[in-house]
Amino acid sequence: MIAIVVGTNRKNSVSRQVANYYSQILDQKGAENRIVDLVDIPDDFVGTALYENNGRNESFNTLREKVQSSDKIVFIVPEYNGSFPGILKAFIDGLKYPEGVRDKKGALIGVSSGVQGGVLAMAHLTDILNYLGMNVLALKPKLAGIESNFTDGKVTNDLYNQLLNDQANRLIEF
Amino acid sequence: MIAIVVGTNRKNSVSRQVANYYSQILDQKGAENRIVDLVDIPDDFVGTALYENNGRNESFNTLREKVQSSDKIVFIVPEYNGSFPGILKAFIDGLKYPEGVRDKKGALIGVSSGVQGGVLAMAHLTDILNYLGMNVLALKPKLAGIESNFTDGKVTNDLYNQLLNDQANRLIEF
Amino acid sequence: MIAIVVGTNRKNSVSRQVANYYSQILDQKGAENRIVDLVDIPDDFVGTALYENNGRNESFNTLREKVQSSDKIVFIVPEYNGSFPGILKAFIDGLKYPEGVRDKKGALIGVSSGVQGGVLAMAHLTDILNYLGMNVLALKPKLAGIESNFTDGKVTNDLYNQLLNDQANRLIEF
Amino acid sequence: MIAIVVGTNRKNSVSRQVANYYSQILDQKGAENRIVDLVDIPDDFVGTALYENNGRNESFNTLREKVQSSDKIVFIVPEYNGSFPGILKAFIDGLKYPEGVRDKKGALIGVSSGVQGGVLAMAHLTDILNYLGMNVLALKPKLAGIESNFTDGKVTNDLYNQLLNDQANRLIEF
Repeated sequence: MIAIVVGTNRKNSVSRQVANYYSQILDQKGAENRIVDLVDIPDDFVGTALYENNGRNESFNTLREKVQSSDKIVFIVPEYNGSFPGILKAFIDGLKYPEGVRDKKGALIGVSSGVQGGVLAMAHLTDILNYLGMNVLALKPKLAGIESNFTDGKVTNDLYNQLLNDQANRLIEF
Repeated sequence: MIAIVVGTNRKNSVSRQVANYYSQILDQKGAENRIVDLVDIPDDFVGTALYENNGRNESFNTLREKVQSSDKIVFIVPEYNGSFPGILKAFIDGLKYPEGVRDKKGALIGVSSGVQGGVLAMAHLTDILNYLGMNVLALKPKLAGIESNFTDGKVTNDLYNQLLNDQANRLIEF
Repeated sequence: MIAIVVGTNRKNSVSRQVANYYSQILDQKGAENRIVDLVDIPDDFVGTALYENNGRNESFNTLREKVQSSDKIVFIVPEYNGSFPGILKAFIDGLKYPEGVRDKKGALIGVSSGVQGGVLAMAHLTDILNYLGMNVLALKPKLAGIESNFTDGKVTNDLYNQLLNDQANRLIEF
Repeated sequence: MIAIVVGTNRKNSVSRQVANYYSQILDQKGAENRIVDLVDIPDDFVGTALYENNGRNESFNTLREKVQSSDKIVFIVPEYNGSFPGILKAFIDGLKYPEGVRDKKGALIGVSSGVQGGVLAMAHLTDILNYLGMNVLALKPKLAGIESNFTDGKVTNDLYNQLLNDQANRLIEF
């Protein structure tokens, strides 16, 4: 099972749409998958699901369990303030430790309005996931200028599509 | 005015104690300062103070204003899951954009139980603060093994004390 | 005195041309400066100027002295293999330790053919320079797609010019 | 075939000794391996084997071919000036592009006299190797304080030995 994590709790995010698209790519390849959208995170989780409260928020537990019980995890990583949204790291901070993502396989996709495509965000996230014991695929597509390369639920940029397909194939074999 | 940000919302955190200690160092040097402890962040701020809700949570605004109206900011950065706590980035994500930390001066102090002293956490944070336009002091003390180097509200390690004093002097002149 | 380091030993590099242009910007602002082009590095310096041979290669010493005797240093950083050229770090490895760049002020400019503008290269370099005690300006212009934004010795992109001028002003006041 | 790259051209380096030790670990597991020590790099390679001269230095080619013809590569990464030695990146810059390390599997081991164990060096190197298409194992042992944990050609620290063995097993299966 592959979990696709939408790395922001913004409502109706572009990242969610990219996740939907990636889910279709995996479907076409016959790879079972499900989306975990951080928009579903309980608003108060930073006070009820971290540190000494880790594991005590049932609603948060339901969300994290979808990640923890998957053996491969795709992160849709929107660039925000020069890195990824803090909420994504806070979500990771709320996972079961140490087994949360340990020994799982990860794939990262950067999304940005600007030209960077989340390159620094994905570098930071790779450091964190590696630290936690998750192997991360080298191929991390950078979907820069997403607004002009995504229409009607589909990535319209040929290079981007090639990279996403290539990555999905590699993840399935990883 | 120097704001000292405690980079976690953990209750009774070691980072808070380090902040208290650093505040005394600044006091002794005659530098006006105040502590902003993320333990005071509203539990639901990720749902009420980010993105389209930026600026709409009065309680969060009070907290961020203490940072935004300071011209120098010290970040006490506990190492957590190979970087800093997600809550710290989420707090930064909730600042007024783009003027939140732009053109301010920053100083970082890493804190860890283990041997790293938050080196990677501070590298990530420097990337983010630089991106947002904050100049960050090169000297970033790494307080590794904090439990055995901090007693009764004081840092007991001579090297650490020397680095903290040196940094405080530099920040005042920065 | 401001040293402008061309961060590659490639002959007739674009980075050198950017350095020439930046030198003119500084000239116009009345800031004394000189260019240190790594193309002038002795070919055998990795065997004659590092580790136990540090300081023993006169030709290398002449080059490094231009950097070490400057109080502000600009690095023109071409993106190469996802970071900066190894030669730049090897040059830094050959500086006098620990005073090489310690307590100096630095400014970074990324240059790339592609869309990244050296963002990761500059993040890595900032880590290294900060480690060595150099304060680095937050503003680090990313000159992506340099071939189409640089003609006849001049940057033709208005935003790039604005950023370079802004950075130069800040460096002079830093 | 697994290549073990000694990431410095320092003579009689500790990294070389760690490479010898790792080679024995792989031998015991029946995994064919060979050491590529950057001490054997031609002193003038930065002038004769990079950019337009890529592939033209036969002596350098012999060295790089040992890496390029291996499908798994271990990097022994000594911490130097807050990252890895510039020579290591310069060596990578001299590899055949783009196939040098693309689609190969990598494992990193940090070595330092100090307490960091090369954590930042390995983060930078991971960025570069991932950029070039090499998948890197999450487990990256940090051999801090190497002088007091390595005697008579052997790592004497139990935790370090456990990590190195664990990593070697994972690399063989990677």
